[in-house]
Amino acid sequence: MKNVKVILWGLGAMGGGIGKMLAKKQGVDIVGAIDIGAKLGKSLYEVVPGIERGDREDVIVATAEEVIKPGAADIVVVCTNSFTKDVFDKLVYVMERGMNVITSAEEMAYPQAQEPELAKKLDEIAKANNVSVMGTGINPGLIMDLLVVLWTAACEEVNHVTSRRVNSLSPFGPAVMEEQGIGISVEEFEARKADGTMAGHVGFAESTMMICDALGWEWSKENFGQDMEAIVTDVDRKSPYGFAAAGSVAGVAMKGWVDINGERKIDMDHPQQIEPEQVGVHTGDYVILDAVPPVNMANSPEIEGGIGTMAMIMNCIPHCINADAGLITMLDIPVPHAIMGDFRNLIKEDKKIVK
Amino acid sequence: MKNVKVILWGLGAMGGGIGKMLAKKQGVDIVGAIDIGAKLGKSLYEVVPGIERGDREDVIVATAEEVIKPGAADIVVVCTNSFTKDVFDKLVYVMERGMNVITSAEEMAYPQAQEPELAKKLDEIAKANNVSVMGTGINPGLIMDLLVVLWTAACEEVNHVTSRRVNSLSPFGPAVMEEQGIGISVEEFEARKADGTMAGHVGFAESTMMICDALGWEWSKENFGQDMEAIVTDVDRKSPYGFAAAGSVAGVAMKGWVDINGERKIDMDHPQQIEPEQVGVHTGDYVILDAVPPVNMANSPEIEGGIGTMAMIMNCIPHCINADAGLITMLDIPVPHAIMGDFRNLIKEDKKIVK
Repeated sequence: MKNVKVILWGLGAMGGGIGKMLAKKQGVDIVGAIDIGAKLGKSLYEVVPGIERGDREDVIVATAEEVIKPGAADIVVVCTNSFTKDVFDKLVYVMERGMNVITSAEEMAYPQAQEPELAKKLDEIAKANNVSVMGTGINPGLIMDLLVVLWTAACEEVNHVTSRRVNSLSPFGPAVMEEQGIGISVEEFEARKADGTMAGHVGFAESTMMICDALGWEWSKENFGQDMEAIVTDVDRKSPYGFAAAGSVAGVAMKGWVDINGERKIDMDHPQQIEPEQVGVHTGDYVILDAVPPVNMANSPEIEGGIGTMAMIMNCIPHCINADAGLITMLDIPVPHAIMGDFRNLIKEDKKIVK
Repeated sequence: MKNVKVILWGLGAMGGGIGKMLAKKQGVDIVGAIDIGAKLGKSLYEVVPGIERGDREDVIVATAEEVIKPGAADIVVVCTNSFTKDVFDKLVYVMERGMNVITSAEEMAYPQAQEPELAKKLDEIAKANNVSVMGTGINPGLIMDLLVVLWTAACEEVNHVTSRRVNSLSPFGPAVMEEQGIGISVEEFEARKADGTMAGHVGFAESTMMICDALGWEWSKENFGQDMEAIVTDVDRKSPYGFAAAGSVAGVAMKGWVDINGERKIDMDHPQQIEPEQVGVHTGDYVILDAVPPVNMANSPEIEGGIGTMAMIMNCIPHCINADAGLITMLDIPVPHAIMGDFRNLIKEDKKIVK
């Protein structure tokens, strides 16, 4: 079998990082790279920091029109957007040229939640072109949803789910500091929250609907809710790219929930802040099930989000290629896992596009 | 769609317990029950303690020949044995009559490990009859293998796996007390260990091969090893069905490992004992990955093994029915989960046997 052929669409921190990981793996080749602006015409191995070319053929960054052609690859990895409506045209463009596509867009981890009509269209277009389309990441995609789902497999009954991720924003760069309002005043936080420019976490609708669909609880926009609160620091906190003076915002605490027939079934808790250790906050991932039998899981400290998301996307490449045609989710594919051997060993012969 | 139709083969603690769980669920019917001896000719609802009949039709316990007939059910749940070679004929008997089959036999969680030839035959017979066969449970099946596999999905590289389950044997009955040597002397333990009559835990070969096959590490009987040690108590310990005087055996500490090219890749740790709390031992399930990024997960106390295994088998029924024909494992099916809704919503129309 020929090596698995991958095209990267988007060479930012996420797409470039996945490229760097893929370049270390066996049985997989990066055969195309798409970006815009100053990166065009340059070598992938020059544009992505730290990626090792080894004795590979060069890959020149080009436009989608130049790279996305029928039979060019087995899969395209699209890391350009967070929202389904923004990434939709790119996904369709790939599928209509007969290739599978996987994306880091958070909403695409379960697009049925916020974009049911676009999800239906993606499913139809995928089936019409005999390819599959999916989105994943560490959250949504694993920690606050698929991991919860797996734990319930040992349960006869589940009454209530608490899914909690307490993480540090310190490793992230200036863009995340700005998005999460690090260092702004409480008044500014409230103003931005009111006018909808506080990003917070994208994914609770997706994660909760995934859990509900798995368990057989009826999710709807009406029984789902979320809110955010400023994490105000009592002391000055300084991270590599952020600073929050005492009294200002050091992070955002997101909460989400699902109520069914007036009963709380799911609580999602996701406080994110810079330098939590400085004030004695222990970070971690938690799955707490009021269930038969109960579950009380902690992963501490939290698993790292940046590498984790890149790894999840890379590790789902074989599953996306192997899947039946259509829009697929984490509930449809076999359990994902790290790939320490040859990518080709994980690919079904009849699903390989580049023979 | 008609309700999912299930036959129970074996009505002991495990098979009967699964029946009791199934009787509480929607969209699923127990349509047959098989056992031997005094249970024959009696009502399932009389034979299984605590099972609720409700307004269901009665089910009379009968022989396999009377119950296992083509089209009788969508799946047969076989809870009669621990080892593949002992349960093999029953699995074949079901498949040759055109039904899917799932079993609690520990070795069947990954029969490729200890019985590769029987596994090959099961796969062939399943495919010839267009049905699927699988085994699962909480361990092997979830806690020390599939859960580990899922955590690696967030990892770029995995260097070493520690999978640990520290559990209490106190909830178990006289048979387990005897099997695990509770209360015997250290000399007797060593004698039984030497002549192979100390059961210990069945599953390390299966769990480690599952992890290796997922990650792409080469597992073989030569690179796998296991051993057991007596847990000798310093104080008298008394559980509902067991007693270990000070100086005697209160449990068994099983260890397993995989070395690849002289390097330790997997360590399995599974100390089981009565009344661990009495001597300050905290029970729990642990996944510790020396990986990029690292994982340090604890579920404490451990998830309960008895209910957990029954739930795993019940919850995998839809996955087994939906699977492509053949011998399937936890690595092949979508992630299992609790079923709080209607079983029928989880079944693919074209895979339903009893239309």
